[in-house]
Amino acid sequence: MLSPRLSAPAGRLGAVFDVFKRPAVRLEVPRLKPRRPADQTLRVNLAEITPEVIPYLGQAAYIQLSIFEALARTVMLAPTVAAKEVLGPASGFALEKHEKLVAELRRLVDESSVVMAQFAPAIEHYNDVVRGSDWYESLTSVYLTAGILDDFFVLLAAGIHGDVGPKVARIVSSPSGREGIETLLGDAISEDATLGSRLAVWGRRLVGDTLLVARSAIHHSGNVRTDEQRIEPVFTELIANHSRRMDGLGLTA
Amino acid sequence: MLSPRLSAPAGRLGAVFDVFKRPAVRLEVPRLKPRRPADQTLRVNLAEITPEVIPYLGQAAYIQLSIFEALARTVMLAPTVAAKEVLGPASGFALEKHEKLVAELRRLVDESSVVMAQFAPAIEHYNDVVRGSDWYESLTSVYLTAGILDDFFVLLAAGIHGDVGPKVARIVSSPSGREGIETLLGDAISEDATLGSRLAVWGRRLVGDTLLVARSAIHHSGNVRTDEQRIEPVFTELIANHSRRMDGLGLTA
Repeated sequence: MLSPRLSAPAGRLGAVFDVFKRPAVRLEVPRLKPRRPADQTLRVNLAEITPEVIPYLGQAAYIQLSIFEALARTVMLAPTVAAKEVLGPASGFALEKHEKLVAELRRLVDESSVVMAQFAPAIEHYNDVVRGSDWYESLTSVYLTAGILDDFFVLLAAGIHGDVGPKVARIVSSPSGREGIETLLGDAISEDATLGSRLAVWGRRLVGDTLLVARSAIHHSGNVRTDEQRIEPVFTELIANHSRRMDGLGLTA
Repeated sequence: MLSPRLSAPAGRLGAVFDVFKRPAVRLEVPRLKPRRPADQTLRVNLAEITPEVIPYLGQAAYIQLSIFEALARTVMLAPTVAAKEVLGPASGFALEKHEKLVAELRRLVDESSVVMAQFAPAIEHYNDVVRGSDWYESLTSVYLTAGILDDFFVLLAAGIHGDVGPKVARIVSSPSGREGIETLLGDAISEDATLGSRLAVWGRRLVGDTLLVARSAIHHSGNVRTDEQRIEPVFTELIANHSRRMDGLGLTA
């Protein structure tokens, strides 16, 4: 199920970064009604690129587990108890999303961990890449990448047939408890310009690797050109939301 | 609130280890009725050594947060996705206990993190000591030490006046999701005698440091001899339960 593009050479990364050269078009995709995206093109695209429900659930569940682990790590490394109090609940929400997605997966398969395990190596590699070298980078990472990945799996859920699609969209788009991270980071950045410029570079760096994870989840038709045309508006939407999150932190996207 | 005994010299550690020389008397303390321990002596002792409710809640809440962090770390380091699936829910339960204890604390004080912060340095030091050098040691640690600490704070809650005592006892004694750890460890130990003997030594080593944490939570009367007499049956009970957990893993206590 893993696209070989996840460990893509520079050429493919170049294709991903092409998206940055375009102005960020802000498509209005209502977050709580993923089955009815306002934009007709986006809706058609989503239906075409959505994977089968079992790999979707396996990958989405394992990614929520990774988000949980990353947030729990920021709890452990937090410099103050007050910061732990912001991050603890956020990690709890990610764990809850993971467990609910696993519960959905278990309605379809006996061994949910076997389904998840096939995504583990690529996601663990990704986690290593985006971990960051200190608490601020780790915190920026999990805030920004979990934002992109949640958005992506909510969008993708629109293409899943039956009741499962809306249900998993509700699970992934449920509260993340990450609002407090914006304050924690925003305060630190506004007080320290050097930190701000370091995190701005870091925040931009994260996007490419995160979109490669998203790309690995997509159903490919076999026609590269068609696939790219379908993926592009989805990625444009993800990047627009990412830019808003960067802005919210006081970072230039 | 932190007893200087938490960073006690060898002499005091010796006093703690004296308890091991006695046969483990198994007092019947019903877990779900901590307000009515069957043993009269234990009940009197608990009332005398219970701290004020605010430091009790602050320390108990911070310890649950530490248990959460330790369990989340075992999720991160787990060798298989199936093991993660056992440990994830367990860490969620510890986080839930932490959050419920913080909610109780917030009914009494504005800044719950300030109350917890005074316990942080000693507990962080303890966490460093009991962390272990690999996944099996970490897992053994959190299984055994969280067992002792949960038992201890449930017992101690019996001495808290009003509705808060039974309420916090219910919170701390609520499901921990740690049963699966017994299976994970027990299976590994039964297959590898060398691992078993290493973890048996490790499991015995953990008790002294954990009882020092418990000791630091206790209200001291100022009369060392009286305090020791009151503490002893409580520690005997904790050690009896610890021995049962060691037995359950196939380790000699």
